[in-house]
Amino acid sequence: MASSEGNKLWGGRFVGNTDPIMEKFNASIAYDQRMWEADVKGSKAYVKALQKAGLVTQNEMEQILTGLDKVFDEWSKGEFKIKPGDEDIHTANERRLKEFIGDPAGKLHTGRSRNDQVATDTRLWLRDAINTLKELALQLISTMVERAAVEIEILCPGYTHMQRAQPIRWSHWILSHAVALSRDVERLEDIRKHVNVMPLGRLVLCILCLTECVCVYFWTAEFLFWASMCLTHLSKMAEDLILYSTKEFSFITLTDAYSTGSSLMPQKKNADSLELIRSKAGRVFGRCAGFLMTLKGLPSTYNKDLQEDKEAMFDTYDTVHAVLQVATGVISTLKVNQPAMEGALSPDMLATDLAYHLVRKGMPFREAHSCAGKAVYIAESKNIHLSQITVEDLQTVSPLFDKDVSSVWDYNRSVEQYSAPGGTARSSVTAQIEHFRTWLQAQKQKP
Amino acid sequence: MASSEGNKLWGGRFVGNTDPIMEKFNASIAYDQRMWEADVKGSKAYVKALQKAGLVTQNEMEQILTGLDKVFDEWSKGEFKIKPGDEDIHTANERRLKEFIGDPAGKLHTGRSRNDQVATDTRLWLRDAINTLKELALQLISTMVERAAVEIEILCPGYTHMQRAQPIRWSHWILSHAVALSRDVERLEDIRKHVNVMPLGRLVLCILCLTECVCVYFWTAEFLFWASMCLTHLSKMAEDLILYSTKEFSFITLTDAYSTGSSLMPQKKNADSLELIRSKAGRVFGRCAGFLMTLKGLPSTYNKDLQEDKEAMFDTYDTVHAVLQVATGVISTLKVNQPAMEGALSPDMLATDLAYHLVRKGMPFREAHSCAGKAVYIAESKNIHLSQITVEDLQTVSPLFDKDVSSVWDYNRSVEQYSAPGGTARSSVTAQIEHFRTWLQAQKQKP
Amino acid sequence: MASSEGNKLWGGRFVGNTDPIMEKFNASIAYDQRMWEADVKGSKAYVKALQKAGLVTQNEMEQILTGLDKVFDEWSKGEFKIKPGDEDIHTANERRLKEFIGDPAGKLHTGRSRNDQVATDTRLWLRDAINTLKELALQLISTMVERAAVEIEILCPGYTHMQRAQPIRWSHWILSHAVALSRDVERLEDIRKHVNVMPLGRLVLCILCLTECVCVYFWTAEFLFWASMCLTHLSKMAEDLILYSTKEFSFITLTDAYSTGSSLMPQKKNADSLELIRSKAGRVFGRCAGFLMTLKGLPSTYNKDLQEDKEAMFDTYDTVHAVLQVATGVISTLKVNQPAMEGALSPDMLATDLAYHLVRKGMPFREAHSCAGKAVYIAESKNIHLSQITVEDLQTVSPLFDKDVSSVWDYNRSVEQYSAPGGTARSSVTAQIEHFRTWLQAQKQKP
Amino acid sequence: MASSEGNKLWGGRFVGNTDPIMEKFNASIAYDQRMWEADVKGSKAYVKALQKAGLVTQNEMEQILTGLDKVFDEWSKGEFKIKPGDEDIHTANERRLKEFIGDPAGKLHTGRSRNDQVATDTRLWLRDAINTLKELALQLISTMVERAAVEIEILCPGYTHMQRAQPIRWSHWILSHAVALSRDVERLEDIRKHVNVMPLGRLVLCILCLTECVCVYFWTAEFLFWASMCLTHLSKMAEDLILYSTKEFSFITLTDAYSTGSSLMPQKKNADSLELIRSKAGRVFGRCAGFLMTLKGLPSTYNKDLQEDKEAMFDTYDTVHAVLQVATGVISTLKVNQPAMEGALSPDMLATDLAYHLVRKGMPFREAHSCAGKAVYIAESKNIHLSQITVEDLQTVSPLFDKDVSSVWDYNRSVEQYSAPGGTARSSVTAQIEHFRTWLQAQKQKP
Repeated sequence: MASSEGNKLWGGRFVGNTDPIMEKFNASIAYDQRMWEADVKGSKAYVKALQKAGLVTQNEMEQILTGLDKVFDEWSKGEFKIKPGDEDIHTANERRLKEFIGDPAGKLHTGRSRNDQVATDTRLWLRDAINTLKELALQLISTMVERAAVEIEILCPGYTHMQRAQPIRWSHWILSHAVALSRDVERLEDIRKHVNVMPLGRLVLCILCLTECVCVYFWTAEFLFWASMCLTHLSKMAEDLILYSTKEFSFITLTDAYSTGSSLMPQKKNADSLELIRSKAGRVFGRCAGFLMTLKGLPSTYNKDLQEDKEAMFDTYDTVHAVLQVATGVISTLKVNQPAMEGALSPDMLATDLAYHLVRKGMPFREAHSCAGKAVYIAESKNIHLSQITVEDLQTVSPLFDKDVSSVWDYNRSVEQYSAPGGTARSSVTAQIEHFRTWLQAQKQKP
Repeated sequence: MASSEGNKLWGGRFVGNTDPIMEKFNASIAYDQRMWEADVKGSKAYVKALQKAGLVTQNEMEQILTGLDKVFDEWSKGEFKIKPGDEDIHTANERRLKEFIGDPAGKLHTGRSRNDQVATDTRLWLRDAINTLKELALQLISTMVERAAVEIEILCPGYTHMQRAQPIRWSHWILSHAVALSRDVERLEDIRKHVNVMPLGRLVLCILCLTECVCVYFWTAEFLFWASMCLTHLSKMAEDLILYSTKEFSFITLTDAYSTGSSLMPQKKNADSLELIRSKAGRVFGRCAGFLMTLKGLPSTYNKDLQEDKEAMFDTYDTVHAVLQVATGVISTLKVNQPAMEGALSPDMLATDLAYHLVRKGMPFREAHSCAGKAVYIAESKNIHLSQITVEDLQTVSPLFDKDVSSVWDYNRSVEQYSAPGGTARSSVTAQIEHFRTWLQAQKQKP
Repeated sequence: MASSEGNKLWGGRFVGNTDPIMEKFNASIAYDQRMWEADVKGSKAYVKALQKAGLVTQNEMEQILTGLDKVFDEWSKGEFKIKPGDEDIHTANERRLKEFIGDPAGKLHTGRSRNDQVATDTRLWLRDAINTLKELALQLISTMVERAAVEIEILCPGYTHMQRAQPIRWSHWILSHAVALSRDVERLEDIRKHVNVMPLGRLVLCILCLTECVCVYFWTAEFLFWASMCLTHLSKMAEDLILYSTKEFSFITLTDAYSTGSSLMPQKKNADSLELIRSKAGRVFGRCAGFLMTLKGLPSTYNKDLQEDKEAMFDTYDTVHAVLQVATGVISTLKVNQPAMEGALSPDMLATDLAYHLVRKGMPFREAHSCAGKAVYIAESKNIHLSQITVEDLQTVSPLFDKDVSSVWDYNRSVEQYSAPGGTARSSVTAQIEHFRTWLQAQKQKP
Repeated sequence: MASSEGNKLWGGRFVGNTDPIMEKFNASIAYDQRMWEADVKGSKAYVKALQKAGLVTQNEMEQILTGLDKVFDEWSKGEFKIKPGDEDIHTANERRLKEFIGDPAGKLHTGRSRNDQVATDTRLWLRDAINTLKELALQLISTMVERAAVEIEILCPGYTHMQRAQPIRWSHWILSHAVALSRDVERLEDIRKHVNVMPLGRLVLCILCLTECVCVYFWTAEFLFWASMCLTHLSKMAEDLILYSTKEFSFITLTDAYSTGSSLMPQKKNADSLELIRSKAGRVFGRCAGFLMTLKGLPSTYNKDLQEDKEAMFDTYDTVHAVLQVATGVISTLKVNQPAMEGALSPDMLATDLAYHLVRKGMPFREAHSCAGKAVYIAESKNIHLSQITVEDLQTVSPLFDKDVSSVWDYNRSVEQYSAPGGTARSSVTAQIEHFRTWLQAQKQKP
């Protein structure tokens, strides 16, 4: 080996026995102290298992449990002091336990690798985090559903490609986003089950056990992706609402709590809350992408690279936590401009209905679609509304048209005709609302 | 409006009524023709639903079904000719159907939006794709499990941080990767259930129906992420095996079918197959990242941006399809160099066992760990193996040491002591193998 | 070593001496044949260098050059036949050369590693690709600039947060996107310089040379990121234009060549071209993300993982190639609805001007901003336009207001007051246009 | 509008005039206070510009400058108190300035949009950040170069595909990573130039100015990608070193300051520092991916989404800052195990040299390569070293072999033959070192 004096030759920054930058780089206590509760709980379960296995005595177990309760108390009261050398929450709690009860503390870690302890704590923390996010998501869905119930009579244009397509109920728009969120809740539930599966206080006694360490990073990654999908859904809703809150659409107005003025333009009111919601899908997916890139090509078992999981997980949790609440606030307080919504309906949005009118008279759909297209063309070239074409003119397109075509020009009738599940008819929307209420009830009662 | 002649003023490339680049850009037939089977099947189910609803007659339905069978036949025989104007598989099949049966073809699309048709086809295709990938994954796991069963006696070092940690069974290493893959299969099963849930031949009659279009992109994204996780797991296995196939480790040798020589260095044998496997996690995650970025901030319902889903889905499927098969080939044919594996075991890997030896004599674990550390230090400073320290020297570390310490220096005994589930003992590994065999059986019998 | 018969025990799919799936997985000829021209050119330069170094004779060089010209011809005419065993473009060309000229072909590869050859070909290809994309980008910018020049009189609202902010010139909006694209061109130029730097026909004679292989992947990654940024810029422009083409805004209409109808709704005209442009930022960034993830944690020098670079590079090139042309088509043909744009201007957008009116009379800006805010509030509560408030009412806000406030209510005057570089005044916009024309000229003249 | 009382019907969480979660979500002061210095500097330049333009008096300017100096002082001394309502560093400093000097403070923001101020501050901050990172990168390169100079005599295997390829100098390995880093420095320099280009104290007087706001996000994104590439390079170096520090390679040993022990295995020494370096490429690229995803599809000009830039930029800076220093520490202190490195050289790594031996005797390279391959095969089947094959046996492969073949089996001679630039010869490596020293000198002298 080259002698250590040789180091001086190639210099760089001086490094003695320790490098404070390396120590800070290595330590996770700055962020993983959030897991203090999970760490104490996990240790309590573990010592009970050790006692059952005869690896600690009843007396030792009791000392350890008492000591852990004191550690818990200090954290609860905000009195726990982190000391130099506490590189993570686990060493911090272990150090404090030893200060409280002395030698027996050393028995707590019999047959327990740090990696296993970290995995257990992460699972416990993640399980609680998932429960909290699920509750917030349910609250948002519930707000949406109740709003949909109250405003079921309001019609507005349904858009595809950001172009007016067909009349729908405003409630139908709200519920379409509730559907996406409810899928998110179901997927979150899937993850929760898996995260939850592990028996606490399992004795591993083997560093390289098959079942555990592999999985916790798997579920962390799944959680990060879940969050990315959930916020992508909300970015979609936010985009719609930002659009609806432009002067040009004027469908909705945010309350002051969810919008801000301009430092330069006194007349402006910006939908900052919605823009923030829209932006967070990027942030959270970045966390997911970063963690997956970190995982890629790592060798098996624990490598220090995996320490990246925590900050990604915490930041993602905090972000989703805030977004769900702000979204709930926005949805529960925004004001709907019903005249503007209904004013945006126009007869050309009933062109499909015109086609179905012919289908009902026996014309194949493709031909009827083509006839309706011709009618649209006539209206455009005459610069009149589709509903203003005379029956005579319509008959040049198809002899099947007669006076009863006037029944088509009714937006309410139009939405009422889609009464299948998921449709825009009052009955369909009401059924959907009832379905959601039942589902919400069931979700809230889950363990 | 500015007159269209004005266009000439600002020039750019000439654009008449059509722009061939735009048409190519817009068309998806080049890749979505892969879905021809799903498209025909979906249409057959749909026309039956139309007939039940009284929207087509029995006779029309039969004509359409016969026509669709002819379309199917042409594709099967590779005789289907794509024509200009066939912008996607749906218009191509519809055009051909019309050529076969004339006007009744126009009735097939009553109440069916293109988006709904695309969503249905995608679901059908994805369901089949998932089934195929699941089978391939099960085949890989099965290969791993059977190999683990045969080679259960071979010991090798278990690594953490790429440093030798403890002796394990080679089978234990194999199974650790089988565990990860089995989680992947279970997650894939979750996705399959959801993709599968939709009733074929549902009449939508509403463009903006709540339940469908939202979801198919959700599940495509979930599938892309699933593939990313699965290949990330395999990248981990590949990384280990690349390491094990270096001259320095020499634990394994790939057969010629899975390695290649060097154009410049005749002595080299490169683990190309494993490097390719390792690389594909990046490729597939890139597809996932790209699709999510495309989804971010889109307004509700269909936007043409969503057309990006298909190529991502097909490329991901093809990649995972190839990787799983190549991995199976690699695992089933690689040669294990047992002497090299066992030669890599050294007494310092039993330091933890030395600590447990003291724990069994009543010393708290933390203290025992520290004593074992001191013994390692003595061995290093005397430049001898840990197992060569005299009992006298060990007693300077702790008086609890006596002659029976010699029982520690036995690798077989070391692996045998971890007999908990997931452990390295013969019985644990065998139990794990049996568990997998049962699980594989159950998986294969799923619908 | 375990005997190879043992393989049968753990089964998996049968693998003989070769595995066709592995061969396909390994081969890159399917896509890298695009580099045939670069490969032939690179070899021609290389053999000249070999001759200079005395490693081939004049005669051998001439035979090789003649043979390479024949290979070139076959590719040019579409007559080159790929054979089994041609795993990449380099082996294909080498094989064909040998068929043409026999043994001397074997001398071409003296001192040339495959990796170096691949790196050289990639650089040549990428250099040409960059040149082409640069030309297309310049064409788009030129189209934008000329359109801006022609339509300089048209005013429209400038938006921040998608809310109307201040009146601007429509040309100003166009040029803001030209600015972003011009940065993209400059960055592309940076990359081109670096890609171009390598002396062709350099003899390496060393597999692990420091200078080359490291860099080509670096520049490929830079190119992928460049494309991501460029398309992100265009996604921004597309988003604006999609918005402007909604019924609600009605600022622009796309020609039929760049929009499509609906299969279900005859009245609809969707901005598909713009949605496709918007979507491609995701696709291309996915390629970049995938390639970086593949690179992460790879050991030094060549690893087969790096083969992922080509498909990413080709797909990115093709995508940007199409997007730039479609964007040029869209910009050169879209129709502007001047009355709608100018109709969207409203007096409240002059609130900042009202503040500056007070600033000019000596009031500090923050106070003036606050006064303008109060005026906006008065107008809102009286439900009148800001310009309709009486001088008396304004004087309740600030005594500095008098009759001359009426001069504020003029949109043309408003845009004219910002005459600094980058401003909205006619002179500023004209200067910007001239700046672009000069810059375009200079860019086109670059080597 | 629906009346606001209606809100109670659909409930959700109660929201009064303000929502504290929204306020926290909206505020950036928690992280952007890092830019305090840039903000004060930017304001000082701005007020001078205002005075030149006659928009503030000499006296007002002096008051403002004095006030800003007081704000600066408070921050410097850590005495600045953030108050509720200080939503970002700009409002905080403005509020404090007003407390110091009263009304004239209100003039500072004449013609200055918040977005422009943020853009200016970001540029100033980023410029300083780039300078610091550049210095750290140069320090790392310098450490590498000086180490390469001292250890130039040490030979080791050069690897491709993680397989031993040819003998190289250890210095050659070091320098290959210095080459990559030097490209990173050059790219960083490119970015610095652009970030720096803006004239401080420019009066914009236009919210929607063309030149500024577009660009700062562009350069932030470029910086994030730069960091991703730089850390990807370092992940590659870390991967090599982790490999070299395994027991199996044993080429290097990290000092204790850069490695840590195991909580469970007393004998272990893990290369944590290198694993952390390897992991950070993922983290930083995640930030880049997240920010690009946030940018995708945003409309023009400022949208609140852009607020995501700061945390990404700060976290990336901090990460690169730490990684560069830790890498410098690792490189300057690691110990090289010369006997292990040289012991890993084996005659089969000279097979290429054997081929060149034949090339020098007139054989075409491809044929010589094939002959060397046959020699490798003979050695393998006789289970002897390549160098131990008799001349007679070699002559069965090619009659060109004779006694002078023995000169091939010399590792020093092998590395010496590659004396072209970038080669492994002592002279090439020395030239490379000199090149780096000159380059470092030039870099340090740049402004």
